[in-house]
Amino acid sequence: MTKVIIIGSGNVATHLIKAFYKSSKVQVIQLFNRSATSTEGIPVTNSYDELLNADLYIIAVSDDSISEVSHKLPFKGRLVVHTSGSVALDELAPENRRGVFYPLQSFSRNKDISFAGIPLCIEAGNDEDRKLLEYVAHSISRKVYRVNSEQRRSLHLAAVFVNNFVNHLYAIGNDICKKNDLSFDLLKPLIAETAEKIENMSPAEAQTGPAKRHDETTVQKHLDQLNTYPTYKKIYETLTKSIQKH
Amino acid sequence: MTKVIIIGSGNVATHLIKAFYKSSKVQVIQLFNRSATSTEGIPVTNSYDELLNADLYIIAVSDDSISEVSHKLPFKGRLVVHTSGSVALDELAPENRRGVFYPLQSFSRNKDISFAGIPLCIEAGNDEDRKLLEYVAHSISRKVYRVNSEQRRSLHLAAVFVNNFVNHLYAIGNDICKKNDLSFDLLKPLIAETAEKIENMSPAEAQTGPAKRHDETTVQKHLDQLNTYPTYKKIYETLTKSIQKH
Ligand SMILES: NC(=O)c1ccc[n+]([C@@H]2O[C@H](COP(=O)([O-])OP(=O)(O)OC[C@H]3O[C@@H](n4cnc5c(N)ncnc54)[C@H](OP(=O)(O)O)[C@@H]3O)[C@@H](O)[C@H]2O)c1
Ligand SMILES: NC(=O)c1ccc[n+]([C@@H]2O[C@H](COP(=O)([O-])OP(=O)(O)OC[C@H]3O[C@@H](n4cnc5c(N)ncnc54)[C@H](OP(=O)(O)O)[C@@H]3O)[C@@H](O)[C@H]2O)c1
Repeated sequence: MTKVIIIGSGNVATHLIKAFYKSSKVQVIQLFNRSATSTEGIPVTNSYDELLNADLYIIAVSDDSISEVSHKLPFKGRLVVHTSGSVALDELAPENRRGVFYPLQSFSRNKDISFAGIPLCIEAGNDEDRKLLEYVAHSISRKVYRVNSEQRRSLHLAAVFVNNFVNHLYAIGNDICKKNDLSFDLLKPLIAETAEKIENMSPAEAQTGPAKRHDETTVQKHLDQLNTYPTYKKIYETLTKSIQKH
Repeated sequence: MTKVIIIGSGNVATHLIKAFYKSSKVQVIQLFNRSATSTEGIPVTNSYDELLNADLYIIAVSDDSISEVSHKLPFKGRLVVHTSGSVALDELAPENRRGVFYPLQSFSRNKDISFAGIPLCIEAGNDEDRKLLEYVAHSISRKVYRVNSEQRRSLHLAAVFVNNFVNHLYAIGNDICKKNDLSFDLLKPLIAETAEKIENMSPAEAQTGPAKRHDETTVQKHLDQLNTYPTYKKIYETLTKSIQKH
């Protein structure tokens, strides 16, 4: 069994612990977190000096603390990875072998999610470490990708567009409904269908609407409707221009 | 059986014909379209003078032609509806009883979709017609809503945000992937999860990301990464500001 220690007790750490718990190839032998909170009965410590010997240490703490935590590890030459989309590999302390184990998904504390379909983006400093990371990744997911730091930075940026920004457009839809005494439920089937369409069609093929059709009359009507929401009007204009340029 | 005639042979007409075909309460007794193309073996005409007597005429033609088509109908006092989100009820010719039968969904010609979950937005000039429309709507969908013209205009605007604009953000994600030799497949689980989250959480609760956290360092890094894509940079700035204002 490959022995793993997970550092952190946030969203990603919690979901990783649960996923590895079901794996027969990888065993989480110890947890580290500041409050020494155990999960799934796994031994836990909050002292760096008590960290056991393991094949892999996964630092799943806030981006800002990854470097600090990696510098506190009281050993050398072992494989240490972080789970962040936006932190470079070389922000990890150079005393250990470094790598990245980035799950490209948005985790919520109270929402279960199966790891099997989550893309795991792997980076390592040498072939052997890469193979170990791939082995560990495949023990919980079908989707394992080799991704360098530059590509990972781009993925993280793309994720902001398709997750954070998309969710904000949902919030705007919700606001427009509320203002007009309409239930947001009305929009949910459309939201689901829009996300489903790009499973089998490129987003360019799936694009429809007044902007795409250059239907200036409808665009103008919509802008007029948005006169009392200047921020949303700006978003409407910016996205309409971008669709027409695409 | 309630007798319905469907005018038009586009996306909406085709999906409606298929949905009513399975209903035991409503029968489509005739189709009208310019090329006289039959579907499901239903009698078809391309001559307005050959239109039969029916309880309901559904005009499912392009927005720009709804008024024209409604004026060509050679009868008076019958119930005539259109299926558009953005056309007012009174753009229909006043010689007939007027209504709206707006399915709030995005249809594609080659993609089957079940009508059962599609919200049908109903508007009519009087109670009796409204009841008939509700009866017909319930024969194909569980979700029937009374929505006036003003509300429908707002829904259509909201739909542009959660469908057309969201799809464009997917296209931007796709572009960023391509530019970095990454498969768009990497983003698909995140897209699916983002859409799924708002089934049980409000979009405001589901909001995450650097804009929401006021993580100005990451926002600035992302803007730098977008220096070669001025249009996408503008979108990033506009949406970040709007999230922070929300
Ligand atoms: N959330 C996601 O959807 C997601 C997706 C992919 C990747 N990631 C990445 O995964 C990593 C963890 O994210 P998360 O969402 O799990 O974060 P989170 O839920 O906010 O949890 C952060 C964790 O970091 C710990 N921590 C912070 N500073 C620390 C320090 N100086 N020493 C020790 N522990 C410290 C916290 O411990 P305390 O509880 O003791 O404060 C907490 O357990 C980040 O790099 C993030 O970019 C997140
Ligand atoms: N597509 C959607 O996702 C969707 C969703 C909700 C509501 N709607 C609304 O549903 C209506 C139809 O949209 P659609 O997407 O089905 O359109 P579509 O696929 O583009 O089809 C338009 C239809 O209109 C017919 N038509 C156009 N001008 C006509 C005229 N002067 N006389 C007779 N027929 C004419 C066309 O006939 P020919 O084939 O002979 O040209 C065609 O059958 C519109 O009001 C639209 O706003 C659409």
